[in-house]
Amino acid sequence: MMRAVRLHSVGEPLSVDEVPPPPVGPGEVLVDIKASGVCHSDLNYRDGVGTVGHLPIILGHEIAGVVDQIGEGVEGFEVGDRVLVHYVLSCGGCRYCSLGKENLCERYAMIGKDVDGGFAEYIAVPARNLVKLPEGLPFEQGAILGCAVSTPLHALRRAQLKPGEVVVVYGVGGLGVHAVQLASRVYGAGLMVAVDVAEYKLELAKRLGADVVVNPLHEDPVERVREETDGRMADVVVELVGKRETIMKGIECVGRGGRMVLVGIGLEEITLSPYRTIIGKEMELIGVNDHLKSELYQLVDLIASGRLDLSASITHRLAPEEANRALEILEHKLGNPVRVVLVQ
Amino acid sequence: MMRAVRLHSVGEPLSVDEVPPPPVGPGEVLVDIKASGVCHSDLNYRDGVGTVGHLPIILGHEIAGVVDQIGEGVEGFEVGDRVLVHYVLSCGGCRYCSLGKENLCERYAMIGKDVDGGFAEYIAVPARNLVKLPEGLPFEQGAILGCAVSTPLHALRRAQLKPGEVVVVYGVGGLGVHAVQLASRVYGAGLMVAVDVAEYKLELAKRLGADVVVNPLHEDPVERVREETDGRMADVVVELVGKRETIMKGIECVGRGGRMVLVGIGLEEITLSPYRTIIGKEMELIGVNDHLKSELYQLVDLIASGRLDLSASITHRLAPEEANRALEILEHKLGNPVRVVLVQ
Amino acid sequence: MMRAVRLHSVGEPLSVDEVPPPPVGPGEVLVDIKASGVCHSDLNYRDGVGTVGHLPIILGHEIAGVVDQIGEGVEGFEVGDRVLVHYVLSCGGCRYCSLGKENLCERYAMIGKDVDGGFAEYIAVPARNLVKLPEGLPFEQGAILGCAVSTPLHALRRAQLKPGEVVVVYGVGGLGVHAVQLASRVYGAGLMVAVDVAEYKLELAKRLGADVVVNPLHEDPVERVREETDGRMADVVVELVGKRETIMKGIECVGRGGRMVLVGIGLEEITLSPYRTIIGKEMELIGVNDHLKSELYQLVDLIASGRLDLSASITHRLAPEEANRALEILEHKLGNPVRVVLVQ
Amino acid sequence: MMRAVRLHSVGEPLSVDEVPPPPVGPGEVLVDIKASGVCHSDLNYRDGVGTVGHLPIILGHEIAGVVDQIGEGVEGFEVGDRVLVHYVLSCGGCRYCSLGKENLCERYAMIGKDVDGGFAEYIAVPARNLVKLPEGLPFEQGAILGCAVSTPLHALRRAQLKPGEVVVVYGVGGLGVHAVQLASRVYGAGLMVAVDVAEYKLELAKRLGADVVVNPLHEDPVERVREETDGRMADVVVELVGKRETIMKGIECVGRGGRMVLVGIGLEEITLSPYRTIIGKEMELIGVNDHLKSELYQLVDLIASGRLDLSASITHRLAPEEANRALEILEHKLGNPVRVVLVQ
Repeated sequence: MMRAVRLHSVGEPLSVDEVPPPPVGPGEVLVDIKASGVCHSDLNYRDGVGTVGHLPIILGHEIAGVVDQIGEGVEGFEVGDRVLVHYVLSCGGCRYCSLGKENLCERYAMIGKDVDGGFAEYIAVPARNLVKLPEGLPFEQGAILGCAVSTPLHALRRAQLKPGEVVVVYGVGGLGVHAVQLASRVYGAGLMVAVDVAEYKLELAKRLGADVVVNPLHEDPVERVREETDGRMADVVVELVGKRETIMKGIECVGRGGRMVLVGIGLEEITLSPYRTIIGKEMELIGVNDHLKSELYQLVDLIASGRLDLSASITHRLAPEEANRALEILEHKLGNPVRVVLVQ
Repeated sequence: MMRAVRLHSVGEPLSVDEVPPPPVGPGEVLVDIKASGVCHSDLNYRDGVGTVGHLPIILGHEIAGVVDQIGEGVEGFEVGDRVLVHYVLSCGGCRYCSLGKENLCERYAMIGKDVDGGFAEYIAVPARNLVKLPEGLPFEQGAILGCAVSTPLHALRRAQLKPGEVVVVYGVGGLGVHAVQLASRVYGAGLMVAVDVAEYKLELAKRLGADVVVNPLHEDPVERVREETDGRMADVVVELVGKRETIMKGIECVGRGGRMVLVGIGLEEITLSPYRTIIGKEMELIGVNDHLKSELYQLVDLIASGRLDLSASITHRLAPEEANRALEILEHKLGNPVRVVLVQ
Repeated sequence: MMRAVRLHSVGEPLSVDEVPPPPVGPGEVLVDIKASGVCHSDLNYRDGVGTVGHLPIILGHEIAGVVDQIGEGVEGFEVGDRVLVHYVLSCGGCRYCSLGKENLCERYAMIGKDVDGGFAEYIAVPARNLVKLPEGLPFEQGAILGCAVSTPLHALRRAQLKPGEVVVVYGVGGLGVHAVQLASRVYGAGLMVAVDVAEYKLELAKRLGADVVVNPLHEDPVERVREETDGRMADVVVELVGKRETIMKGIECVGRGGRMVLVGIGLEEITLSPYRTIIGKEMELIGVNDHLKSELYQLVDLIASGRLDLSASITHRLAPEEANRALEILEHKLGNPVRVVLVQ
Repeated sequence: MMRAVRLHSVGEPLSVDEVPPPPVGPGEVLVDIKASGVCHSDLNYRDGVGTVGHLPIILGHEIAGVVDQIGEGVEGFEVGDRVLVHYVLSCGGCRYCSLGKENLCERYAMIGKDVDGGFAEYIAVPARNLVKLPEGLPFEQGAILGCAVSTPLHALRRAQLKPGEVVVVYGVGGLGVHAVQLASRVYGAGLMVAVDVAEYKLELAKRLGADVVVNPLHEDPVERVREETDGRMADVVVELVGKRETIMKGIECVGRGGRMVLVGIGLEEITLSPYRTIIGKEMELIGVNDHLKSELYQLVDLIASGRLDLSASITHRLAPEEANRALEILEHKLGNPVRVVLVQ
């Protein structure tokens, strides 16, 4: 038996259960989980925003650990390998998978939402979903590559950010803190503006590459961007909050030919004039959902060469049994959280 | 003196005036206008949707003719050359111009809207704005390359349409008829669906490359696309109508990873949930404004090789003095118009 | 037992053997082969240019048939489905596979070269390698999608051919005949020039979209391209012959910023001055190897919409037992062959 | 009269002359030159490798200064503006210019080669060729943006370098030192390998972002790259030397699907088997010539945000009268030169 933290009923706290460890099928690998990140989406799944695949379910989709057992027909991995788990289960053969866009797979399922995830001692996953971690990278940092770092990378790739462009990041949380760093250090953004209502996040953004930080409680981000860019406005806006107001303000920040990537999840609707906002400046509104396995390879290569610094990303480490406390920290922003990780 | 058809007052009919021919500055060329297309935008300018640069103004932005006089310092053109005029006046040096995106130029002006246009006998334009027409191409067909054919090309380029993809074109008018043809014959669309309320336009679409035509008065385009694609939906939707309903229906037609290009001009607002529509299927909403000179070269090369058939595009030919009648034909769809051209 | 045509020894003719039908593993499907194309590469494998994986081996990598049996865990296919087999066996998980570039897979193997192929009654392949064929498409045409049509598509995609560009295709054989058609009808090439020494191939090229055909026995292709383009030269050259002379002539055909895709397989070396040829005109020399499964989906969608006409592509149909005769036809160009297919 | 350093005769030293300052035509600006970089190409022009437009000619194509006089019709610039001069004179209207590829312009001319350049007190250039420099940037650093920094940027853009990819830079001179920095800090390269025979250059490379440095006098770069990448080899190779040996070694460094950009100018020929080298691994050989004005905007934006550090790039500063000495320093590598600039 193994320990697993499961959601039994939507809207209720998770409970710590004893369950049988998962069987290891052909092509699969059993991973001994060492670290499992806690995402704002986990709050959503608990609260019914986004439906889970079955109940009870083990949440957790940012998973790093050690290969413990190897299924039939698996090549390229050995017991003891340190690995990161890609949370997208895909068919590998449909038209979207064949394009390397498995986040759009016709048989898509998400680990930690549609099937059991990482708040447990072990998980069995297809070997195709593993990426080896660079030597020396702490498991907790490896885990957050699997969403908190990769989703912003996916967003910037979708935005086709080019060197020297003006970038605005709305929302400097667990994802935004990496959007700032990736934009400035990996994508060579020109002016990098970070927007958030929490001062500690703005300070962190400043440390990790933001040239200008704006607190919308004190000043209008649109006007500030206009002033800093001499009217040019932003080439790329990354929206990570998901509220009506931030989306609408974000759109106003976009300049000629600019692109806005929508990442933040929320249920509020927006109202806009396509002609005046989107057509007039030839902007693009681009949806971002999940990330790709190819992007995990990119991140691992960036980490191996020291291009990214994740040392400030994880502010809280708890035992898996404390998963409810972890969700509470995120929900009520206790102790200035950025990313919270369950480690064992 | 030359004859020019001018708008003197917003909301009023145009009037036929005698005006001095324009002077030819350094770097400029005088074009003897042979054909000038009439665009739905001209109705907008007349009616105050979109503000013109000065009054009175000569409208008309689809211009073809013959080089009549050559200004100081112009190389590469000779008196007698048959030419098409690119209607975007640009600085040639700003960051957008230097990227080949002169439609976003910091000093952008539009011929026939911001400055005098083509409903006249002559026009003086920078030599940089001319493209030579292939031998044998009638002037009237050359003229409509300058907007009715190039704007859909720009839209498909912005949509990054790839061979085999499912395309839906909303609105088969002067632009849509070319969107259908460009998508199916030049971009190798897979299933090509055309949507319009006018049966004569659907018949034309069918003739020019549409595989499926849908009249929303009789059947729901969304359901039809779902059925024809077995649930896959569209990879690219081209919206050329600009009304709330067509835009919202268009968004529903978009499948996983699809792109919707917004071309149609209208003032209605839309309301949507970014999470449910844009993020969920990772779609892109892409604004399209004008076109690029580089695209005129593409069109001229396509025409020269016979890849495009514009013989059905022009349904009405009138004298420049009949410009008001031409606008009336477009406004009230008299005699099943596609494109109306003033010829002399 | 089933009938299989195998190569037992390099340099020798193939022999018709009785062998046990292949077992169907988990995730695999047994295909009842209906048509199997014969490729110039098969001559190479027979003659030792390119080493096969084991001996004896069943050659044949253009395979279409009917699903006969379904292995454990396979979803999405049923007995009786008409299918095309993608000949690239890939791991599905490495950095190249995850980018949708399985032709570069770290564990790449080729059906019909590294493992047993299609000159047989049955083949067992991973379900991930199948693409369903459109209703009504003859198996023989379905088969050649798997190399003779897809490789030129891959080449044009690698060349990033854009509408209106000047294209030169060197070598109008089984692949070239499709390069011509794809370039002119699917990619909207401007001027399309086809070069070959065989007049019957030039006639075919003309019928399928070539605007200009050149027989280098009678005239210099470089000079002809110069003349036809008024000195602009080609934007894209597709080299399908693989000889020193055609490659060098092809490079000369390339204009400013042009791209040359190298597809033809040959062992001859070329000598060139990088500065004078490649740097001076900022050209690109691009290698092309195999094709991608995503491209098979594109082709199937194009076929379903009638964008491609394969009716002239297959000139010879033989029984599998006549495989040696088929190779002979290709080798000695007996009876003006384009593509030869083994049908049963 | 103004002082100008001119080449009177190929193969001879430059001479310091008194000449009339250039007239300022319509659309032009007179620039008071403050700094003018000395490029290895200047040696080539002096020695007849690459033909200059006329004799005598003022060399120098990396020019920064202050706007001194403004011609008729120029908008957007004022006397006193600090500016960088783009050395490509282009028509602004041909098919290449309209694509933003003015380095391929049909009427291309190069300042400092085809027409008089920057080794002088003043130069008159089209306003379209100017980019404003960020406040606080020394003129000498502004000057080298115009070739030593922009050409490597152009090369990396042509190579489509993506985050995490393995990069090898061959030749860490005035251009290579910026290739290293741009690849690692602006393009987010993964493993960054620099190759040079001069130890001081390798030390500099190390300081500016190289993870691994290789001196081919002591070890084989190909083997080192193989070892460091575990056999994966390079995704991008930047060749800045232009010799047969470095090009051939560079090609060997390229891995599956890799791209090699050829920048270094030399007259030596190479011999290769297209099948074995280019086709087999689906690599691309990409020519790089000059750079684009749009890239100067990118650089200026990167500089303004402090993403680039040019403080180590300029090792020698001389007066314009010492131009021959400057060439000698470059030619014979006196005093460990990186970039040499003439300042006044």
